[in-house]
Amino acid sequence: MAIVTLIDEKSATGDVADVYGEIRAVLGLPFVPNMFKAIAHNPAYLRSSWERVKVVMAPGQIDRKTKEMIAIAVSAVNGCDYCVLAHTAGLKSMGTNDAEIVELMAIVDLFSGFNKLLEGLQIPADLGAQGKR
Amino acid sequence: MAIVTLIDEKSATGDVADVYGEIRAVLGLPFVPNMFKAIAHNPAYLRSSWERVKVVMAPGQIDRKTKEMIAIAVSAVNGCDYCVLAHTAGLKSMGTNDAEIVELMAIVDLFSGFNKLLEGLQIPADLGAQGKR
Amino acid sequence: MAIVTLIDEKSATGDVADVYGEIRAVLGLPFVPNMFKAIAHNPAYLRSSWERVKVVMAPGQIDRKTKEMIAIAVSAVNGCDYCVLAHTAGLKSMGTNDAEIVELMAIVDLFSGFNKLLEGLQIPADLGAQGKR
Amino acid sequence: MAIVTLIDEKSATGDVADVYGEIRAVLGLPFVPNMFKAIAHNPAYLRSSWERVKVVMAPGQIDRKTKEMIAIAVSAVNGCDYCVLAHTAGLKSMGTNDAEIVELMAIVDLFSGFNKLLEGLQIPADLGAQGKR
Amino acid sequence: MAIVTLIDEKSATGDVADVYGEIRAVLGLPFVPNMFKAIAHNPAYLRSSWERVKVVMAPGQIDRKTKEMIAIAVSAVNGCDYCVLAHTAGLKSMGTNDAEIVELMAIVDLFSGFNKLLEGLQIPADLGAQGKR
Amino acid sequence: MAIVTLIDEKSATGDVADVYGEIRAVLGLPFVPNMFKAIAHNPAYLRSSWERVKVVMAPGQIDRKTKEMIAIAVSAVNGCDYCVLAHTAGLKSMGTNDAEIVELMAIVDLFSGFNKLLEGLQIPADLGAQGKR
Repeated sequence: MAIVTLIDEKSATGDVADVYGEIRAVLGLPFVPNMFKAIAHNPAYLRSSWERVKVVMAPGQIDRKTKEMIAIAVSAVNGCDYCVLAHTAGLKSMGTNDAEIVELMAIVDLFSGFNKLLEGLQIPADLGAQGKR
Repeated sequence: MAIVTLIDEKSATGDVADVYGEIRAVLGLPFVPNMFKAIAHNPAYLRSSWERVKVVMAPGQIDRKTKEMIAIAVSAVNGCDYCVLAHTAGLKSMGTNDAEIVELMAIVDLFSGFNKLLEGLQIPADLGAQGKR
Repeated sequence: MAIVTLIDEKSATGDVADVYGEIRAVLGLPFVPNMFKAIAHNPAYLRSSWERVKVVMAPGQIDRKTKEMIAIAVSAVNGCDYCVLAHTAGLKSMGTNDAEIVELMAIVDLFSGFNKLLEGLQIPADLGAQGKR
Repeated sequence: MAIVTLIDEKSATGDVADVYGEIRAVLGLPFVPNMFKAIAHNPAYLRSSWERVKVVMAPGQIDRKTKEMIAIAVSAVNGCDYCVLAHTAGLKSMGTNDAEIVELMAIVDLFSGFNKLLEGLQIPADLGAQGKR
Repeated sequence: MAIVTLIDEKSATGDVADVYGEIRAVLGLPFVPNMFKAIAHNPAYLRSSWERVKVVMAPGQIDRKTKEMIAIAVSAVNGCDYCVLAHTAGLKSMGTNDAEIVELMAIVDLFSGFNKLLEGLQIPADLGAQGKR
Repeated sequence: MAIVTLIDEKSATGDVADVYGEIRAVLGLPFVPNMFKAIAHNPAYLRSSWERVKVVMAPGQIDRKTKEMIAIAVSAVNGCDYCVLAHTAGLKSMGTNDAEIVELMAIVDLFSGFNKLLEGLQIPADLGAQGKR
């Protein structure tokens, strides 16, 4: 159970109702995801969050399916069940199978392990891998 | 500075030297990354880690460039400078530009934020996004 | 279910019983929170943890309500449902409404996103924002 | 060093220049923070991120100083040096002293410890601390 | 519910069946843990992961019980219920009692708190505690 | 550089000086670690933190060396360089070599990877691994 009430679609008015309508249309969903129903207590934050979703998730140099996979990997590392479930559903609607999901999670596994190992051992960067100012 | 000595390429013998040679060949690098030089204190762990790298990072349903992007996203969330640098260098050698890297990190930003928000608000999964047993 | 048994209030004796009584009195609760019932297997650790709660959560330069909000933000980032629930209940007893909780979580969202973005991009500190020795 | 170039203020044109100008004006800073100079490679993402900063950080039910403290607490938990430094500088400009910063970090310490303890012990929520649907 | 199907023992063939048999024998379990049943969608990854488990968890300079305790501590910090439960069961089968588990978790609590405090305060390393190249 | 000044040993008076003296004596160090010098801005928090260190790190069912290893593992996962360095120095003073440190970090690697994998795949607990109320 959420720690705040969810503002359902029937109760939404004004800009919240507008954003709800846009979410359903753009995401092609028959419902507004619970996340948006929770943050609708702050309509300006709901609006600015939704605008940012559109900007970040729109296909650019990176295509939409790859963006969904990255979103799932990030959510797995942060331990967010809600996001993993929501975006796995999205990925499956694009034709992903269980083997591809395991292939994705194997990268999460390998690098999460190495990341912590490297932080623990405090290994300096290789000379061949420099940043730039 | 690392908390253990790094076993350099000249000092490596036996299976460690074999793995070092394979790493340079498979990754196409003129050097062995420091990470492997640190874990070489445990040759069996070095070997099994390297075998797993080959399995996980080989192109499968997911291509190599996408795997590198996922590796960078995971490493950013885990806060591992070493891995981000190493794999950004790899990505750049495949022709990635700064705008694409920012496009990638925007997904890390958006979802890391939402992940923590959702964990905080304890939002239940949408009915339309179910797992399976 | 917890991975250790909880030592209930009827079974508590000696210093554990004393700490339990103090917890109920100081927190104004009709029960001892489960967390304390679990760590009571180690009475000295229970005692020193409770002493530290009193020191850290007592109003000082920062008032009690702000401390509760910070505690909830920290717990959201660390993904601890128990703490978020317990301290949201505390915050609500001080008159907080759902909109204020969303306003709080929006900060958790914004900065958790930026934090990971910045770690990923490895942005150097601005010259205008220096620490001191 | 950042893994992407920073787009400096002299090179900025169009919407990037507009956002840069607004950032300096609204934050009252003589420079544009490096974070924004990095994400300016994606002008739409820069714009939507900045719009969201304004919405989330504007005083509402929670005042600006408390928002800065929450931002620092979140950034400490996520381990982001850049954000901690930037927002500590902001907090100090509002008159905060070292003792208040330590009082803030003590809450980060106490709850980060308890958060991990509770996740480890898998303690169920107290009956008195319920969420709502 | 998992986001992928679990490949049960009756359905396993070839190398997956071989690994399953080895897991049951080496771990002394009457069943194959669900984790392995999920990653079996990628037999090479299953095999390389299992080989690495054997290398890492075999007694060396660190004995098996201590390794289980470290595994639980790591899993508590990462917030993984599955691993904490699985390895607590393993630890209990070696004669651990609730007080010892709380003693272990107290270290998780103390250091997770200090870790975040130190990251927040950005305290430089003591001169007496240096790494080496 | 720390974001607060460090209160050095010459400037310490009253209870802070007492705790400083006790820290040097109990830890057998010729200096007070910087962490304590930073939190000394809040003497009651310094005192209660130090009391808790003594309780948690004293040998009990778990011996001191094992406690140091667990502390390092926790600090590696949380990404705290300060704590890893400080406690690795402690461990080395007990005779640990580089191979044992790598053996320890291999567990951090293995389980941090599996932890994130399992959170991502949302694998349910095995029936044979139950908690208790």
